Amino acid sequence: MTTTLRVAIIGGGFMGRMHAHAWRTAPRFFDLARTPEVALLVGRDGDRAAAAAARLDVPESTDDWREAIARDDIDVVDICTPGDTHAEIALAALAAGKHVLCEKPLANSAADADRMAAAADLAAARGIASMCGFSYRRTPALSLARRLVESGRIGRIRHVRAQYLQDWLSDADAPHTWRLDRDRAGSGALGDIGAHSVDTAQWLTGSWITEVSATVRTFVPTRPRLDEQVGLGGRGAADAPREDVTVDDAAAFTATFADGALGVFEATRMATGHRNANRIELNGDRGSLSFDFSAMNELWFYDATLPAGEQGFRRIDVTEPEHPYAGAWWPAGHGLGYEHLFTHQIVDFVDAVTGGSPIAPGFAEAARVQRVLAAVETSAASESRRIPVEGVLS
Amino acid sequence: MTTTLRVAIIGGGFMGRMHAHAWRTAPRFFDLARTPEVALLVGRDGDRAAAAAARLDVPESTDDWREAIARDDIDVVDICTPGDTHAEIALAALAAGKHVLCEKPLANSAADADRMAAAADLAAARGIASMCGFSYRRTPALSLARRLVESGRIGRIRHVRAQYLQDWLSDADAPHTWRLDRDRAGSGALGDIGAHSVDTAQWLTGSWITEVSATVRTFVPTRPRLDEQVGLGGRGAADAPREDVTVDDAAAFTATFADGALGVFEATRMATGHRNANRIELNGDRGSLSFDFSAMNELWFYDATLPAGEQGFRRIDVTEPEHPYAGAWWPAGHGLGYEHLFTHQIVDFVDAVTGGSPIAPGFAEAARVQRVLAAVETSAASESRRIPVEGVLS
Amino acid sequence: MTTTLRVAIIGGGFMGRMHAHAWRTAPRFFDLARTPEVALLVGRDGDRAAAAAARLDVPESTDDWREAIARDDIDVVDICTPGDTHAEIALAALAAGKHVLCEKPLANSAADADRMAAAADLAAARGIASMCGFSYRRTPALSLARRLVESGRIGRIRHVRAQYLQDWLSDADAPHTWRLDRDRAGSGALGDIGAHSVDTAQWLTGSWITEVSATVRTFVPTRPRLDEQVGLGGRGAADAPREDVTVDDAAAFTATFADGALGVFEATRMATGHRNANRIELNGDRGSLSFDFSAMNELWFYDATLPAGEQGFRRIDVTEPEHPYAGAWWPAGHGLGYEHLFTHQIVDFVDAVTGGSPIAPGFAEAARVQRVLAAVETSAASESRRIPVEGVLS
Amino acid sequence: MTTTLRVAIIGGGFMGRMHAHAWRTAPRFFDLARTPEVALLVGRDGDRAAAAAARLDVPESTDDWREAIARDDIDVVDICTPGDTHAEIALAALAAGKHVLCEKPLANSAADADRMAAAADLAAARGIASMCGFSYRRTPALSLARRLVESGRIGRIRHVRAQYLQDWLSDADAPHTWRLDRDRAGSGALGDIGAHSVDTAQWLTGSWITEVSATVRTFVPTRPRLDEQVGLGGRGAADAPREDVTVDDAAAFTATFADGALGVFEATRMATGHRNANRIELNGDRGSLSFDFSAMNELWFYDATLPAGEQGFRRIDVTEPEHPYAGAWWPAGHGLGYEHLFTHQIVDFVDAVTGGSPIAPGFAEAARVQRVLAAVETSAASESRRIPVEGVLS
Repeated sequence: MTTTLRVAIIGGGFMGRMHAHAWRTAPRFFDLARTPEVALLVGRDGDRAAAAAARLDVPESTDDWREAIARDDIDVVDICTPGDTHAEIALAALAAGKHVLCEKPLANSAADADRMAAAADLAAARGIASMCGFSYRRTPALSLARRLVESGRIGRIRHVRAQYLQDWLSDADAPHTWRLDRDRAGSGALGDIGAHSVDTAQWLTGSWITEVSATVRTFVPTRPRLDEQVGLGGRGAADAPREDVTVDDAAAFTATFADGALGVFEATRMATGHRNANRIELNGDRGSLSFDFSAMNELWFYDATLPAGEQGFRRIDVTEPEHPYAGAWWPAGHGLGYEHLFTHQIVDFVDAVTGGSPIAPGFAEAARVQRVLAAVETSAASESRRIPVEGVLS
Repeated sequence: MTTTLRVAIIGGGFMGRMHAHAWRTAPRFFDLARTPEVALLVGRDGDRAAAAAARLDVPESTDDWREAIARDDIDVVDICTPGDTHAEIALAALAAGKHVLCEKPLANSAADADRMAAAADLAAARGIASMCGFSYRRTPALSLARRLVESGRIGRIRHVRAQYLQDWLSDADAPHTWRLDRDRAGSGALGDIGAHSVDTAQWLTGSWITEVSATVRTFVPTRPRLDEQVGLGGRGAADAPREDVTVDDAAAFTATFADGALGVFEATRMATGHRNANRIELNGDRGSLSFDFSAMNELWFYDATLPAGEQGFRRIDVTEPEHPYAGAWWPAGHGLGYEHLFTHQIVDFVDAVTGGSPIAPGFAEAARVQRVLAAVETSAASESRRIPVEGVLS
Repeated sequence: MTTTLRVAIIGGGFMGRMHAHAWRTAPRFFDLARTPEVALLVGRDGDRAAAAAARLDVPESTDDWREAIARDDIDVVDICTPGDTHAEIALAALAAGKHVLCEKPLANSAADADRMAAAADLAAARGIASMCGFSYRRTPALSLARRLVESGRIGRIRHVRAQYLQDWLSDADAPHTWRLDRDRAGSGALGDIGAHSVDTAQWLTGSWITEVSATVRTFVPTRPRLDEQVGLGGRGAADAPREDVTVDDAAAFTATFADGALGVFEATRMATGHRNANRIELNGDRGSLSFDFSAMNELWFYDATLPAGEQGFRRIDVTEPEHPYAGAWWPAGHGLGYEHLFTHQIVDFVDAVTGGSPIAPGFAEAARVQRVLAAVETSAASESRRIPVEGVLS
Repeated sequence: MTTTLRVAIIGGGFMGRMHAHAWRTAPRFFDLARTPEVALLVGRDGDRAAAAAARLDVPESTDDWREAIARDDIDVVDICTPGDTHAEIALAALAAGKHVLCEKPLANSAADADRMAAAADLAAARGIASMCGFSYRRTPALSLARRLVESGRIGRIRHVRAQYLQDWLSDADAPHTWRLDRDRAGSGALGDIGAHSVDTAQWLTGSWITEVSATVRTFVPTRPRLDEQVGLGGRGAADAPREDVTVDDAAAFTATFADGALGVFEATRMATGHRNANRIELNGDRGSLSFDFSAMNELWFYDATLPAGEQGFRRIDVTEPEHPYAGAWWPAGHGLGYEHLFTHQIVDFVDAVTGGSPIAPGFAEAARVQRVLAAVETSAASESRRIPVEGVLS
């Protein structure tokens, strides 16, 4: 008989909905030391929060996140709001002794990220866990990639090639949203999706990015302001009033890793035809690994130690009992989808909360990602000069 | 405020677990006229059923399926047991006025299938719904394919090419299971996976198979008998006692469709390297459609009405709001997995139960699949002679 | 200083042009024991033959193939005419002591094929070589596949899955050509492209097809008669007079191989969207091989002896010095095209003529393919009954 | 009756061999206003040049390139030597009134390239043609891409994404060659393969690169010195004396195009598993185009003007009569190989020489590529600072 782990989700949008599903699903397929229950849903608008809670089968809702902090019966605060609110909520939650799961990006500024990392360190000493939601790490294929890199299967890495290509802003009349507002979102493609690439690259290689040289671009400087409900992908309204886009549409940068590898990164919301191509490839002196989230159940592995004439990229169907996370699900070959990343994240988070394994990525590690993004922006504003990534809490 | 729809799941194995997840998930993402609740889980072994119920958060369990039939508070009987038990349970449930969702194959014999179809017809007159679980119909990409065929986009169909390739029996020492026992499973690759291909082909084309010429093969006639818990994919035990395989490992057949199309079907569990490649392609005089479940979020469409020199198979990422089922889930490009088929099936089943849309496939339509499988076996036993598929309830 | 090998090409159409290019190219890239020179081009129409000879840089032309047989200075007769003329020309050439390269299909009837095989056997005793032009054998990727099968890398073969998909007849108004006339072409998709699949399958597996069960189909029974010059792919003329199509548009059959493998074959000219998808896959108990001529420089190899969790189909880029034929050409990764098959064929043919290696496929082996095609037609005409392939010269 | 066009090839290595094949093949498949004949082959070593000439069926050879310039009967000088010799030979040939085809890179320095461009301009006024051998422009798929861009099918271009990935230096003991010597080769991956990407990108977009920010890397600073004959791809000799690598192994840069597009370029010889992946993708506001030379007969086109829900990247098999160059070759679907680029280049060169079409790319255009490469090196040496590409002959 396990004890329960009571969760408050802050944020009733798409990401809150996804987390609710993950919390509900995880204990049905994995053995967890404590059984999660989502007890409270917090949304900015009380009525909409109540409706979302009803839909998601969450018993209570509120429009005040401080209620989640104040309640004794809440063990976990799960932050699914835009980046500008993360620091305040997370610091309050940690201070109140709540375990914290915080969506990425950790914060909208490196300074905030550092404060959160410092608070997380202090909280850890009191047995409080905190994790940043770089969910792509929980893709079985990428987790297998990490395992292969760690065991030396691709040798010394020379190249990291990461592209995160979306196209929901390709139409110049796609509507404005909070994601295009620097105050709320922090940055554009860079922080939203480039952040995933940076985290994945550093995690997979086990090496930090030390220098970057960057270019950012806003191709469409104003967009029609529609009612926010319309959301992503809405088509629209060439004659609506237009509002300034204050973040990047695209960012590209080269990077130097501590171990000497050369990284080439590109993140964009203007790559017509690519809905969500989150791609990364590593080339080492013993092999290569290649991944595209558009085929999320596949990992391509090139083993340069096989006999000449027999080598080739091979498509590993990462749905076997031998593969990370996969054994808990369906028979081999019956693929997983996007939501599984979040379910696996809950599994790992609960494991960390209950002492089973170290948290990863913790806030300090996530703050390192933020430092890289900050360096990218600084370089882009300095004629692309190659500049060092500042140390985190060093 | 919707009323609830109370469900008993019969079968606590992999498929029962999948259905439980689907019943739980559907109302969180779709608007349903009644809200399903799984109230009872039935398993052959009482202790294991209780354990499964606890894991799946189902309040009650039993080892007697008749209890589900007898209880007044159960609205739906969801049959997830091996094929030899379907007819008895379904007939009892229908007689008791329960709506029935029955996993495929509908039955292990065409005669049983016919009896079930007749009972379903009678029950329908009393407002009782029954559906056979050909879940692949609920794949958004195949549903889009159906829509394109219906609207004439590929014109008159000449070729149907369906392969369902698995490899879990490729190892001659892969263990025996109930799926290799004719008494329980009815047939082998033919009924287990070939049935999906037949249903998908008939549904997509909107045309019945009228004749078949078939070959079946059992490449490995005996297999080691392991404890059944070991399940699919187990490696093993070259020196265990061996038991006869009484079903086919592979089946191949050509088929004539009522509208003149030529079908080529292959189903096998011995296609080394293919975990679950459920593929179908249609070639018409105005275009073609191609699908492989290994990339379940993609549909390939060739439009032969585009200008010469610009034609090509195009990969439609079937995750847009415009696509079947997809709008209820994540932003475009964030793919779905295997389980979504079952969630969508619940959505459609509940819709049919509550009068929203006709049931499909009903038992009569599923019995037609069974008739095709029977004709395949008869032809294979008659020197592959091309024989007619017997009419169903005609 | 090598001696020359003087060649007469019979047939000035597409295939004659291709052979001329191959004869010219082979000695520039490969070491041949004798240097080929195309001395004479024979065409049905004298003026057009002269024009083709000029274009192809062949010094002489004629409209009488018997001239090629009669001339003492011709060493090789290379037959590139429609199938109905093969037997007469080849028998005359062999009788005259010419080496013979004959395009496939060897003949339009199994009886003719047998006579040719018998004559080739007699000629071989006098040092005269004869080869049938199953050019796909010379694809480096398929040649590598053969090498892997021979060395046991995929183990015992269970499945052979061959599709040859074209679409140049998909348009019901695509014009009639000699290829649709049974008298000249022998059969349709079956003999033209299905023959390649049969040869490739028997060669790769090293096993003969012993039984077949077949269906053939002519979807479009009449086509507009245009001036023959218009050729393949011509669009057109819905109001031209229509002529009967006397061959199949498509053929599908299952096959039993002598070693127990199950074959599924499909050849069609109506597979909209597929210009020339010549595909074959073999599944054995130790691995699989897969090939599609649409990506002719790739072979996909699945090695089931690698550790569990690391297996996958791997794409071998068959352009390495270690690969068959490839070392004579460009640096690795710079792919070859269709014409290379014919250049390689000349290399192998000259090697056989000059005693370097046994001829393959000789006429007897090609006649075996013809026997399979004959059995396919017989079965198709006999309600698809599975029938034995008659022995060749047995 | 056409007059002949007499050609001297300077350089007897791989590239000279390729050109000889192209000169020989072009008139057999295309209608040319003059018929080329390779009359003279020049190599550094007289004996080896003679042997190469014999193999290539070239009547004469010499070890002195000035002989080609001096002879009145030579119309064309075709330069296939390393880059350090291009300027001297080309300037002498142009001065002597020879048409010049010069392999890329045009020269090893921007200054040399400028001098060649100036000389070419003067020669053009006298009816003398000069072309730089950026052969990838002659790929049918890329030529079709250019046509689609020109006709506005992808709209305004935002992204250019070009990767040229090779791996022949991935092994740290792959031997030294002249290509790793700055004095002879000018630069490494940058000038050898990155130059192709730059030319292709500028040509396809019809826009110049105006600024770059770059990083270059030499991962393996010394390599074993083997006898040069061993060539590319040789394995070996860990204990041979090692020589300095004085060029880059890899280069990465972002670029700004005159029309505002953002380019991301990467060229490397260390991308384990990629033999010759020359890739480019363009994203515009009406569509996208994507190409990989590893599948050289395919162009992927995304048309964002199709109805929502039906869009997708489509694979155009660029082997139709409607496609550039393709009609001269085989039936649709029978793909071309690497050498066809060179044959097409001859066709276009002869056309320009005989007044049929303007030369492209001429030396001035090729010098622009060289300016971009020079800017890349300058930026890389200046902390990756974004710097302007200097004007060419402006």
